[in-house]
Amino acid sequence: MDRQREEPMVKPEFGYVTPENICLLTDLYELTMADSYYRRNKNQRVVFDLFVRGMPPCRNFYVFAGLEQVLYFLENLKFSYDAIDYLRSLNLFSDEFLRFLKDFRFTGDVYAMEEGEIFFPNEPVVRIEAPLIEAQIVETFLLNTVNFQSAIASKAARVIIAAKGKGCVDFSPRRDHGADAALKVARASYIVGFMGTSCVVAGKVYGIPVFGTMAHSYVMSFPSEIEAFRAFVEDFPNNSVLLIDTYDTIEGAKNAIKVAKEMEKRGRRLRGVRIDSGDLLTEAKEVRRLLDENGLGYVKIFLSGDLNEYKIHDLLEKGAPCDFFGVGTEMGVSKDAPALGGVYKLAQDETGPRIKLSKGKVTLPGIKQVYRIFSPEGTMVKDVIALEEEKIKGIPLLKKVMESGKVITSVPSLEEIRESFSQRLSSLPEPLKSITKHHDYKVDLSQGLSELIEKLKHSPH
Amino acid sequence: MDRQREEPMVKPEFGYVTPENICLLTDLYELTMADSYYRRNKNQRVVFDLFVRGMPPCRNFYVFAGLEQVLYFLENLKFSYDAIDYLRSLNLFSDEFLRFLKDFRFTGDVYAMEEGEIFFPNEPVVRIEAPLIEAQIVETFLLNTVNFQSAIASKAARVIIAAKGKGCVDFSPRRDHGADAALKVARASYIVGFMGTSCVVAGKVYGIPVFGTMAHSYVMSFPSEIEAFRAFVEDFPNNSVLLIDTYDTIEGAKNAIKVAKEMEKRGRRLRGVRIDSGDLLTEAKEVRRLLDENGLGYVKIFLSGDLNEYKIHDLLEKGAPCDFFGVGTEMGVSKDAPALGGVYKLAQDETGPRIKLSKGKVTLPGIKQVYRIFSPEGTMVKDVIALEEEKIKGIPLLKKVMESGKVITSVPSLEEIRESFSQRLSSLPEPLKSITKHHDYKVDLSQGLSELIEKLKHSPH
Repeated sequence: MDRQREEPMVKPEFGYVTPENICLLTDLYELTMADSYYRRNKNQRVVFDLFVRGMPPCRNFYVFAGLEQVLYFLENLKFSYDAIDYLRSLNLFSDEFLRFLKDFRFTGDVYAMEEGEIFFPNEPVVRIEAPLIEAQIVETFLLNTVNFQSAIASKAARVIIAAKGKGCVDFSPRRDHGADAALKVARASYIVGFMGTSCVVAGKVYGIPVFGTMAHSYVMSFPSEIEAFRAFVEDFPNNSVLLIDTYDTIEGAKNAIKVAKEMEKRGRRLRGVRIDSGDLLTEAKEVRRLLDENGLGYVKIFLSGDLNEYKIHDLLEKGAPCDFFGVGTEMGVSKDAPALGGVYKLAQDETGPRIKLSKGKVTLPGIKQVYRIFSPEGTMVKDVIALEEEKIKGIPLLKKVMESGKVITSVPSLEEIRESFSQRLSSLPEPLKSITKHHDYKVDLSQGLSELIEKLKHSPH
Repeated sequence: MDRQREEPMVKPEFGYVTPENICLLTDLYELTMADSYYRRNKNQRVVFDLFVRGMPPCRNFYVFAGLEQVLYFLENLKFSYDAIDYLRSLNLFSDEFLRFLKDFRFTGDVYAMEEGEIFFPNEPVVRIEAPLIEAQIVETFLLNTVNFQSAIASKAARVIIAAKGKGCVDFSPRRDHGADAALKVARASYIVGFMGTSCVVAGKVYGIPVFGTMAHSYVMSFPSEIEAFRAFVEDFPNNSVLLIDTYDTIEGAKNAIKVAKEMEKRGRRLRGVRIDSGDLLTEAKEVRRLLDENGLGYVKIFLSGDLNEYKIHDLLEKGAPCDFFGVGTEMGVSKDAPALGGVYKLAQDETGPRIKLSKGKVTLPGIKQVYRIFSPEGTMVKDVIALEEEKIKGIPLLKKVMESGKVITSVPSLEEIRESFSQRLSSLPEPLKSITKHHDYKVDLSQGLSELIEKLKHSPH
């Protein structure tokens, strides 16, 4: 079905989501289905699972992110008058449904993994238990949020692994997919261990540390490179990183060394130099050598310029002497796997557990829990997806976080999520930490779940 | 340089960009450089170009999008008290610069291609002429907006070419990169010819037609498929598209036929059926045959499920009898080329034309215009990038759209952009319309520009 407003289009004033219109961040069919359910008084309690179907060869694990935004959305979801007026203008919805939307609230329960949890295909990461209409209406927002933030967190975690403890900074805002993406890429990369971001609004909204050096245009705006360097360290004496590749990296390094020596005479220290182009390995080695020769062992080297986990791995394998990486585009759009295939599927309704049998799109029925089994040394061994009533040895990963539409846990700070993720990463089996090779982690279905699937395959209704 | 707020982090209430914080959608270095410029009274008028460096093998042309958001941003850019308070808390900026930001406005001139224009690497799509500080501060927002929307428009245009006049609908919100991306993917795909979107907020904000069918969960919520179909057409008698692949596509088609026949008795017509999984070619053919056998030639077939331009091309080549395509993930994240490599570079300052010589990152100096040369039949032959003062035969693509910070043209409606793009697409040489083969379009540098580059290569300062 399709509808276009009958009134003339109003020029948007602020073309972004707002607290008033975010309720409409949904696919149209969620609302038409909801209208049909409402008219038919079909609003029994149901269970939906959010899970990812597959994993591309370039990923060994996923990192769950976006729960804070999901909980905020669910707790605050209201349909503004303005939103309802728009829906009415589509001439599609029943009057009774539009009246119902005026007082709509999400009143369900939510079970979820913690943000920063490591997860694998087919494992529910969020379970919604709610009246059918509520569960349906929130689908698109949940998928949009979890798919995107988890895709970025999963990619950024690979960068963190490759960087072997060297600092990584998000430099991606100019290539991220719009305004919200710039904000959330900073968030998703920070929780897996990035030091911070260049994105100032992410500092404002989330308290993430913000970083920056200088652009080539700054250097070019002065009559000579060394004049640019001198000006910058005068204005930011404690914290300057000089970009040395505008004209010639080695000449740039020599200019930076001159300026660093001048700073030493004033009792200051140059923080670092950045190389953003050319053969980063060769140039970093040469620049390091020049810095060290001049007694500037404390001056750090920042590398940037289309970096990803593969290039960082390669640079460090080959002994690139660098301290920090600025990582932009490839992390910010998760270039090798830009979309996470998360789906949101009915698992149970008033008739009991449900299964979907579309080719290649089978779902796991019933109310489920994910158990993680660790070795005595604390390494992850395997996961088991089980029915909630089964007794399985292992750590249950899904926890109740919302009851009757209200958050019942303290939402962790980004620092807490970051710390938890770091511990989880250390429990990941070594082969799964490989950047270059794909390894599968064992995820079993419990006996109870397997039996239920077999039963429902023969009589799905 | 880096700074973290000293105050404790405040829990975000609405974790998205707002009219108050969008001024901070910038890389930190834009603001530190601006502070340095301000302290040094370096605020001479400069010229920056926004252009894309390269083109991957999977693209033959780009489509420019996002200008409306850029102009709105530039015309309304202010630093709120809240934003300035945050910047002050970083202990990084000079007091005089923070005072300057209170009254900051963008006062420059902007030249740009029209939204929906076809463009190629190295061609400036936006030119900013403004005092240095203003030109610098707006960089990140401009790149974020134009890179993202143009990446999506360029991908979506390929889908439109592949669909050969069949309708395409944006089904991507659940996989787009966050809230703003869902809104802007709908916009960018609409201007290149998508019929509309499933994204309701894009209908509200931009007046884009909204579409929807039904989900598998709707079918599963009824005791049987046919009961679900009957309920839906009763609730939406004029506009129902039935999803027929929840259990078995052919059985689903037979149920849809029964329901369509029942509708006919009530003087109604079923609009269509949707197939979302399995072998779409075989199943569409079989479903079409069944529909036609039953006198239901008017019932349309919608196909969806991980579609992209390659699959659509293939389906139509093999004679898939379908009428509409729902295109989600692959278009919404521009999966094969998820980031456009747009950059923003100094082209001229008070000393004259400037060039950047970093390896692989050379820029074109001076104030430039892009001319397009057409054959007598109206087909694009080649483009010429020239200095503005040169006399070149051809249509100039850059137009002045903002003067002294105020928009001076009427911003076209999305329908107008859509119509212009359709005409442009018809002027594209046939080889460039290939989905499967890469072809290069000829973009020359004028004699004047070539001579200027040679001159500056030998004395860049």
